[in-house]
Amino acid sequence: MCGITGYIGYRNAYPIIINGLKRLEYRGYDSAGVMLFDGTNINVAKTKGKVSDLEERVAEQIIADGNIGIGHTRWATHGVPNDVNSHPHISASGELVIVHNGIIENYDSIKKELQTRGYVFKSDTDTEVLVNLIEEIKKKNKVKLGQAVQIALNQVVGAYAIAVFDRNKPDEMVVARLGSPIAIGVGKEFQEYFVASDASPFIEYTKDAIYLEDEEMAIIKKGRKVHVRKIKDDSFVDPQIHELKLNLEQIEKGGYDHFMLKEIHEQPRAIIDTFRGRLLRSEGIIKMSGVEDNMKKLLNADRIIIAACGTSWHAGLVAEYIFEEFARIPVEVEYASEFRYRNPVISEKDVLIAISQSGETADTLAAIKLAKSKGAFVFGVCNVVGSSIARETDAGAYTHAGPEIGVASTKAFTTQITVLALMALRLARAKGTMSSSKYRLYLQEIELIPAKIERLLKVDEKVKEIAEIYQHVPNCLYLGRGFNFPVALEGALKLKEISYIHAEGYPAAEMKHGPIALIDENMPVIVIATDSEHYEKIVSNIQEIKSRKGKIIAIVTEGDHVVKNLADHVIEIPYVEEAFSPLLTTIPLQLLSYHIAVMRGCNVDQPRNLAKSVTVE
Amino acid sequence: MCGITGYIGYRNAYPIIINGLKRLEYRGYDSAGVMLFDGTNINVAKTKGKVSDLEERVAEQIIADGNIGIGHTRWATHGVPNDVNSHPHISASGELVIVHNGIIENYDSIKKELQTRGYVFKSDTDTEVLVNLIEEIKKKNKVKLGQAVQIALNQVVGAYAIAVFDRNKPDEMVVARLGSPIAIGVGKEFQEYFVASDASPFIEYTKDAIYLEDEEMAIIKKGRKVHVRKIKDDSFVDPQIHELKLNLEQIEKGGYDHFMLKEIHEQPRAIIDTFRGRLLRSEGIIKMSGVEDNMKKLLNADRIIIAACGTSWHAGLVAEYIFEEFARIPVEVEYASEFRYRNPVISEKDVLIAISQSGETADTLAAIKLAKSKGAFVFGVCNVVGSSIARETDAGAYTHAGPEIGVASTKAFTTQITVLALMALRLARAKGTMSSSKYRLYLQEIELIPAKIERLLKVDEKVKEIAEIYQHVPNCLYLGRGFNFPVALEGALKLKEISYIHAEGYPAAEMKHGPIALIDENMPVIVIATDSEHYEKIVSNIQEIKSRKGKIIAIVTEGDHVVKNLADHVIEIPYVEEAFSPLLTTIPLQLLSYHIAVMRGCNVDQPRNLAKSVTVE
Repeated sequence: MCGITGYIGYRNAYPIIINGLKRLEYRGYDSAGVMLFDGTNINVAKTKGKVSDLEERVAEQIIADGNIGIGHTRWATHGVPNDVNSHPHISASGELVIVHNGIIENYDSIKKELQTRGYVFKSDTDTEVLVNLIEEIKKKNKVKLGQAVQIALNQVVGAYAIAVFDRNKPDEMVVARLGSPIAIGVGKEFQEYFVASDASPFIEYTKDAIYLEDEEMAIIKKGRKVHVRKIKDDSFVDPQIHELKLNLEQIEKGGYDHFMLKEIHEQPRAIIDTFRGRLLRSEGIIKMSGVEDNMKKLLNADRIIIAACGTSWHAGLVAEYIFEEFARIPVEVEYASEFRYRNPVISEKDVLIAISQSGETADTLAAIKLAKSKGAFVFGVCNVVGSSIARETDAGAYTHAGPEIGVASTKAFTTQITVLALMALRLARAKGTMSSSKYRLYLQEIELIPAKIERLLKVDEKVKEIAEIYQHVPNCLYLGRGFNFPVALEGALKLKEISYIHAEGYPAAEMKHGPIALIDENMPVIVIATDSEHYEKIVSNIQEIKSRKGKIIAIVTEGDHVVKNLADHVIEIPYVEEAFSPLLTTIPLQLLSYHIAVMRGCNVDQPRNLAKSVTVE
Repeated sequence: MCGITGYIGYRNAYPIIINGLKRLEYRGYDSAGVMLFDGTNINVAKTKGKVSDLEERVAEQIIADGNIGIGHTRWATHGVPNDVNSHPHISASGELVIVHNGIIENYDSIKKELQTRGYVFKSDTDTEVLVNLIEEIKKKNKVKLGQAVQIALNQVVGAYAIAVFDRNKPDEMVVARLGSPIAIGVGKEFQEYFVASDASPFIEYTKDAIYLEDEEMAIIKKGRKVHVRKIKDDSFVDPQIHELKLNLEQIEKGGYDHFMLKEIHEQPRAIIDTFRGRLLRSEGIIKMSGVEDNMKKLLNADRIIIAACGTSWHAGLVAEYIFEEFARIPVEVEYASEFRYRNPVISEKDVLIAISQSGETADTLAAIKLAKSKGAFVFGVCNVVGSSIARETDAGAYTHAGPEIGVASTKAFTTQITVLALMALRLARAKGTMSSSKYRLYLQEIELIPAKIERLLKVDEKVKEIAEIYQHVPNCLYLGRGFNFPVALEGALKLKEISYIHAEGYPAAEMKHGPIALIDENMPVIVIATDSEHYEKIVSNIQEIKSRKGKIIAIVTEGDHVVKNLADHVIEIPYVEEAFSPLLTTIPLQLLSYHIAVMRGCNVDQPRNLAKSVTVE
């Protein structure tokens, strides 16, 4: 959950690395550092804080020279974010320099071993242990850097992407990955190389990229082809060069104050992009190649198991309701982290759907590997083309939401629901569990969603007024039932993530089994009370909260009268078929979190302690 | 979610009713009321508050006369708890008096109808509407009370247990039930009758009880047999008289300050009672008649679906892990309230396990009915013998925890896990998914649990010290993984329920996907980090929290060294096989909640807004 950049070539490395780090800040931003080799000296600058703080530090130190360098932006796992714990880390001899993304689980025992041999550690990090382990192996075994890295990595347990530099080999860099991504940008005639956690840092320099696979390492040398080997058995790998199609403009804020607000407003477009070419309403069909090609496997599934984390897990819960309702296939939704460690019952008769915006979520990736090892068919839903999950799954469907930079996921959530709803409709039609008239109605309903969201986004001013009133509360509850129970969870997560208010979501009827004890006149309760089969039940729940003096902010369907008279505030959404209502009800909750966070002075796009893509377990 | 009492006979009704209400306060306690008929006048006293407040009110009014009366202790659903909204409610003419437990969903339209006929309402309650509907029918149709009640109940939508008195028929009472329980105590030679939500109010007067079934009503007349009819079609029902085996001593506090503390300490005994006669370790077998008699159905199940609410839902989550691990049957755990309303995929190939301490939980009962209607085999796990759920299910196993009076469930949780673990072991053995050596090991482990809990309860003083430090925090997080993830949820629920601190449980690995944003130096995090397959992972999670300055209270296994050096406080539990560890790890969390709540001056046994048994939806 850190960002790595590196450069070897003929240009000044510093601006490439520092700009690259800025583009990778979505991966972590509690400290940053850079190493530059000017031909004689290794110069390192590092600091707690963001990449902009690093720039200031470098300006003070005047070390911005050299054609080779590595950089790092960090999300702490071992040791608090401070200058000493920041990357890069240098070995005891001062010869080796490393940046590392991931966790070395057995670092403590290795550290003790090295300490008995006289190594002294400056930081609390697992990374400093790793670079000294490499150094120790290099010296003891009298091997080159590449070999030393390989031996070391075979001794560690954990996950990593690393880039290592040796001042004795100043035109070389060794990189390796297990669990965390590494992309290598290939310059013209191999005269320069770029290394990064994704391709964004080098997009303007080259369109040719090599993606390392898990358990692969590469020796990168200026003027020579990249040399890729398997870490375990040292076997040679012929690296594939991909052509990059990323457009840098897509990752600009585009006039909004924050990426998150921009991404909230992008949702109509993102949903259209997601059903484009798939929803052919005039022909009355849904076309998804990942589904068509595997129709038999999907229809014969005993169960669908959905594995995901965070917001994607909430999208999975919505999908559970939609799949069961439409296609009558039993669905079980699992936290990926729990699923992978608990010897779950899963067989070749099951289908696993893995959901992840980044496609790099470590726990979800591990869940996929476990399911595959048991023979299950694995279907991926992710947003990043060519991501690890996209490559690991048997088939899949991308969400086409475009890059999501705001750490709090918004358009990824609604496009995930869109893809999964299309899939459920397609399977329902194939299974015959839905009448053709109902099917046509639903196709039409999906097509109308973007325009309805566009209209709904106009509630922004009203939501802002509500945010004004409740911005200082320490706690908040979110309630929903049925299709909108997961939206309550997601609404609470959004508020928690960016405003640091302790918000919690609940299925409304569970209130009586405990959480209602929290209700008093200081507790705002956001209730999704749109037109649905549960409408009367949720009105009863609202009555129960009012009886205990809780403040009610209700999301209702346009034209509602009953809840309007009970709630302290209402936000109206356009009428929509109940199964698709999460695509609308979630919008005002995103806006509410956004405005409250802004009013509280929080860093909306980069909330404290969080990282966009969780590539550690 | 209210308590009802009533009496007709030759004794002074008031002490019987008032003592009965005290025993029923676990069903709700935000207001209380009583009606007594002295032969001439209907005297009513009612008040916001507890039954003891009602006693004071009655003392002021001096109305405690008469051999017939009804009483009520309330948990508000419509209208805030106040004197006017309290029961009993009297009809416009002053002739009919009612007490009601439940919700009339369509009260608003009936109210409007009655208002057009000139009825004026004093309260906001659905109950006052019902009594006037009965009166209107009685007048308009010129029928007797019983018939009027029957016609009225056929017009209302909702759930109810009611007792109705008519001053024109002063030796009679009409009771009826749909969804909420009614027990009728039968006196010698029918010279007196008792009515109550359960048998505890009349246990010292008679051992003979009739339990009304759903959609039944009874006309009770002194000196005559009870007359039971079906509400829908007016058909005659021959009532069965049950012999009560309840012992009143069991519901005393037994030297502890609170029922909850007493019940926490009763857990070793409750678990022994639960496996007594079932776990025959010397013979190496488990004997559960509900399982044996239905072995084929259970073994052939495609899936087990567990439906429950609140703490029982957490027990279900623990059972999911145990069943899948031991018996390799896929398990899905559902909130009963969500399951019943969402057209779930369930068929005669599935088994539903319903868990409820009281056996009266309305949503769980509805889930049972839904599953049965789809042909599924339904197995009940409840604590109250003869409860609605016990009667509705095809088979079941009681928990034998004894009466649980503290609203926050403790011994019910651990005995539910015990029953479900026994069941999983029995099925695993029958399916051959567990080796006989492992099976014997687990039998032995269960047998050792009570003694380990007994030893563990000695941490009380240490837990108290920790409670002292954190008693004033506004928020708290609970983390666990695997078998102990549900324990984290349960620990958080306990704190929420009785101390009104906003506590939330999470699977530890999900922290990174949002909740970690809440962590700062003010946030205590309770982490279950006992010896397990996930130990190293949870150590990483603890590191992540420490990096952000969160305070760690860790539950560890005796002899732990690693977490001890990281956590701010550790509580040790005896070593136990991982699958059964929830039975131990939950104990210090119960104690922690208890002590914090006491220090905050909260009403531990009767927390605000809550009721013990949730018999409304």
